[in-house]
Amino acid sequence: MNEALHMVAKILASLTAALTLVAAEPVFSQEPLPSWNDTAARSRIMDFVKATVTEGGEGYFAPADRIAVFDNDGTLWCEQPYYIQLGFMLDRVKALAPQHPEWKTKEPFKSILDDDLKGIAKGGEMGIVELGMATHAGMTTDQFNTIVNDWFAAAKHPKTGRLYTEMTYLPMRELLEYLRANGFTTYIVSGGGVEFMRPVTEKLYGIPPQQVVGSTIVTQYDLVDDEPVLNRLPKVDFVDDGPGKPVGINKFIGRKPIFAAGNSDGDYEMLRWTTAAKEPSFAMIVHHTDGNREYAYDRQSSIGKLDKALDEAERRNWLVVDMKNDWKKIFAFEQ
Amino acid sequence: MNEALHMVAKILASLTAALTLVAAEPVFSQEPLPSWNDTAARSRIMDFVKATVTEGGEGYFAPADRIAVFDNDGTLWCEQPYYIQLGFMLDRVKALAPQHPEWKTKEPFKSILDDDLKGIAKGGEMGIVELGMATHAGMTTDQFNTIVNDWFAAAKHPKTGRLYTEMTYLPMRELLEYLRANGFTTYIVSGGGVEFMRPVTEKLYGIPPQQVVGSTIVTQYDLVDDEPVLNRLPKVDFVDDGPGKPVGINKFIGRKPIFAAGNSDGDYEMLRWTTAAKEPSFAMIVHHTDGNREYAYDRQSSIGKLDKALDEAERRNWLVVDMKNDWKKIFAFEQ
Repeated sequence: MNEALHMVAKILASLTAALTLVAAEPVFSQEPLPSWNDTAARSRIMDFVKATVTEGGEGYFAPADRIAVFDNDGTLWCEQPYYIQLGFMLDRVKALAPQHPEWKTKEPFKSILDDDLKGIAKGGEMGIVELGMATHAGMTTDQFNTIVNDWFAAAKHPKTGRLYTEMTYLPMRELLEYLRANGFTTYIVSGGGVEFMRPVTEKLYGIPPQQVVGSTIVTQYDLVDDEPVLNRLPKVDFVDDGPGKPVGINKFIGRKPIFAAGNSDGDYEMLRWTTAAKEPSFAMIVHHTDGNREYAYDRQSSIGKLDKALDEAERRNWLVVDMKNDWKKIFAFEQ
Repeated sequence: MNEALHMVAKILASLTAALTLVAAEPVFSQEPLPSWNDTAARSRIMDFVKATVTEGGEGYFAPADRIAVFDNDGTLWCEQPYYIQLGFMLDRVKALAPQHPEWKTKEPFKSILDDDLKGIAKGGEMGIVELGMATHAGMTTDQFNTIVNDWFAAAKHPKTGRLYTEMTYLPMRELLEYLRANGFTTYIVSGGGVEFMRPVTEKLYGIPPQQVVGSTIVTQYDLVDDEPVLNRLPKVDFVDDGPGKPVGINKFIGRKPIFAAGNSDGDYEMLRWTTAAKEPSFAMIVHHTDGNREYAYDRQSSIGKLDKALDEAERRNWLVVDMKNDWKKIFAFEQ
């Protein structure tokens, strides 16, 4: 009897040690996707994910192939009334204006300093590119990282007054977590600047810098006082939007995703690319249908225009998520 | 007594279940780096790695910051008597020659078809670029992937007669494994073409496609019979060599590495970039000193020239690995 008890004690000790290690595995204390209503959208997502992890099933994928790609603006965080990165540019122009007296009379800077958003829009795409270069280049990568971090610590959304970092969609963050808990690797594939997103994606979405694909400007290796730096030059390197998204996925990830989420025609080619494979795959569109809790827009919007992709969604079996009806909560700060 | 035994049986069953999960953790049945001699090189590497995982110590890094970057040609696999990717180009020219009668009189193709390696060298860098474009572009990414896979399945090293896939350095593969077992994420950062390496890096080094940074050519999204493809265009996109390596690391990984390994002046800027940070960091140079088991070359070599980086290694505290004396075995196939 004594020996048996001794053995039990020893086994219990080993068991405790073993379980300490086991505890590192994900543990679920609740149903997945709690901020999603119990509608067809949630079921379709969960059915697909369950199939991918069911060994021996037709929809099974090895963990290495469970690549999921997410657009950012309008898919993971709010893109209205203008892209968050444009908000950054506007603030940077104001901060840098004392060093640039010529901006007082030069567009698009003049309109920004006059708080005239319509004037900025008149400059069109070239104005925006010029704005991007003036605010995103001319410093080292480390310096830019600090500027971006400092900005996100204080900058607020013009309508809600919340920090921009609070403007993420809670159901999408839950979806990212749910996918990762099922062995997926989650990537951002965004038209936004990669070095604008990387400082915050880990904290906001659990997505580390190396899993962020985005637009880039040219950087150059230089020595300053014999210390290496990377200088950001005012030259576009790669535009990760529209047909650039499959190019970016191939360049940075080197595998085809099996899951893609977007919200605009800028994601169309990424959704096509993801669902072109013969194996099962999943594409979804976040449809902005809730003008009260967020913004309602699609075909006519200059930001996040959703037209062609919406037309083809049904025929291509892409899930269209209706934010108003499929989501219990949009933002975590909602009551 | 019966109850105690019953309890033991139940505990044993739980323990077995728990241990099955625990078995997924890395298990070491032997000393790390077994193909390394017990010299200072091995000790320096192990001391650094032990410090990075020692919580509370000055050299500790969180797992997310344990980024290790490795050059490929001459660091992970053999680059003599010519780059393996050049071997691929030569074979492709021969395979494609029937479709290109003009190559019979046009350099560098003529020299290749005549098996005149010196003639190819005369074409210089422009000849190599032209060669690269002729053999790496003009097909889809999927088609190129198949071509590369088929080639690696049969192509052999001109001196050893071994498959190129056998020409990897066993001590370096052990180092990759050792780093990963200690929570590092291992990347290749090579001047070689990223889509030439990705089909084999997982099998050869345990490095998945998304952890391979390399040179790229421009790809373009197209529809063929309404199916999306990426076409490889004859245009250089990014050269991941020399000062391009820190640029590539920043672009693709977005974090500074704390460990870097190279073998030539083409890695100099990567080693500088890695060791520029104020925190502890580690850089090593694989010095090709073994003319019997491999090749002996450094300052005068046209391939893998090692001159400036060797000069500065001591002053910068970079480890110079002496292949002849520090490695028990170079290739796994050695007796």
